[in-house]
Amino acid sequence: MNSVVKIFKIGGGIIDHEAELQEFLRLFSGISGPKILVHGGGKGASEMLRQLGIAPRMVNGRRITDAATLDLVTMFYAGKTNKQIVATLQKLGINALGLTGADGNVIQAVKRPVREIDYGFVGDLSEASVNTHMLHQFLALGLTPVLCPINHDGQGQLLNTNADTIAASVAKALCKQYEVELHFCFEKRGVLTDISDETSVIPKINLADYALLKESGVIADGMLPKLENAFDALQFGVEKVIIEHALYIDDTLHTTLCLT
Amino acid sequence: MNSVVKIFKIGGGIIDHEAELQEFLRLFSGISGPKILVHGGGKGASEMLRQLGIAPRMVNGRRITDAATLDLVTMFYAGKTNKQIVATLQKLGINALGLTGADGNVIQAVKRPVREIDYGFVGDLSEASVNTHMLHQFLALGLTPVLCPINHDGQGQLLNTNADTIAASVAKALCKQYEVELHFCFEKRGVLTDISDETSVIPKINLADYALLKESGVIADGMLPKLENAFDALQFGVEKVIIEHALYIDDTLHTTLCLT
Repeated sequence: MNSVVKIFKIGGGIIDHEAELQEFLRLFSGISGPKILVHGGGKGASEMLRQLGIAPRMVNGRRITDAATLDLVTMFYAGKTNKQIVATLQKLGINALGLTGADGNVIQAVKRPVREIDYGFVGDLSEASVNTHMLHQFLALGLTPVLCPINHDGQGQLLNTNADTIAASVAKALCKQYEVELHFCFEKRGVLTDISDETSVIPKINLADYALLKESGVIADGMLPKLENAFDALQFGVEKVIIEHALYIDDTLHTTLCLT
Repeated sequence: MNSVVKIFKIGGGIIDHEAELQEFLRLFSGISGPKILVHGGGKGASEMLRQLGIAPRMVNGRRITDAATLDLVTMFYAGKTNKQIVATLQKLGINALGLTGADGNVIQAVKRPVREIDYGFVGDLSEASVNTHMLHQFLALGLTPVLCPINHDGQGQLLNTNADTIAASVAKALCKQYEVELHFCFEKRGVLTDISDETSVIPKINLADYALLKESGVIADGMLPKLENAFDALQFGVEKVIIEHALYIDDTLHTTLCLT
């Protein structure tokens, strides 16, 4: 049997709140076995862009990453956020290793082709983007990789990449060698039947349930791409996907996604 | 016989000039065998501090690193500079791994004790600060560590550290296991007898020569701490220290420091 690797993804909702981030990291440090943390951005980069007089450019709610923005988000995600997380994990006894995709060439992205919209320096991924050999070597050394949402194209260009996509791509790439559990951590206890009722968590959703929940409109908006990513990963061979609250990752109340 | 590791240190004089940095990295990528790059800061961080309205605080020509400054230099050195170097080296076929001291716990610093001056979040090092085991593992994986001047104290605090000191401490720590060559790269071809004459390079300086050159005032100012660091490293067992121009690291015109 393959050994288990647990991949956790956290986003801006946690990163933007210092005390909550610290609490998540404390819980994460208690997770046994090989693990990987993938973190997203947060509002800090946008605030600093404004302070520097660089107006965030959004099209259809998505950020356009021009050269100045890429520079700034690289500083923020790979410099500030990533290194604060790594230093905190070290304090908690976890030998964390902060990485962009360029470090150890762990993830190579492809600049998103320009169609109707030019997203700028944004990278798209496939499971072939992930250097499973190097991640395996890092895990074998007892290290906990901490991936930030900046990758490279192998030609010297850094590229901004969605953290959910990184987490799913890493999960899909590693599942040939490991039994992979993918944890999407956010500000709810899981997929809710009633968004205003925190206790209305659906404990388990399989592919058939998912089709029904989509049809009935219970799953909508921001949850849809997350679950699309998740079921795609499951169909690719990822063992289990868990949707859970970042501050209750040690709790049994969450949503488990599986194929059947 | 131990295998050779070459450690190169570059500072702001190169980092601040994009074309020169690219040329140095091209030459560095051609250096054979296991190698490590240590880079300093540069003027970019100070400029951004000014843009953000954070006035650089200097005492006796040395920067005081308060919390806001630490945040910014971490972003700049560990985010922007480090990742641009790593991405460029990847393009040049070098499997670079960008690191702060917190990553893989490779370097633990001690916050400088407050005496007459409180330097703030500045870290001091000893050779015991360096995790030789982890650096050895990275080198054994064929990786080229790229160290930026940010370390941690093991208690969750990041600390700004002089890059010359990092290079010398890493050299001293690794020389138990490797034959270490330490290269200080800057904007001159070596130690000059006449600062205005680029060709007046002293090819070799031993400890006795150094004492005489200091006494006669040929070596003064900024070169003194660099050479103090260098001879300290040699006395500790580092095989060779070379002072050279960052754009001519493939050339034989440079200053070699040795004990006898």
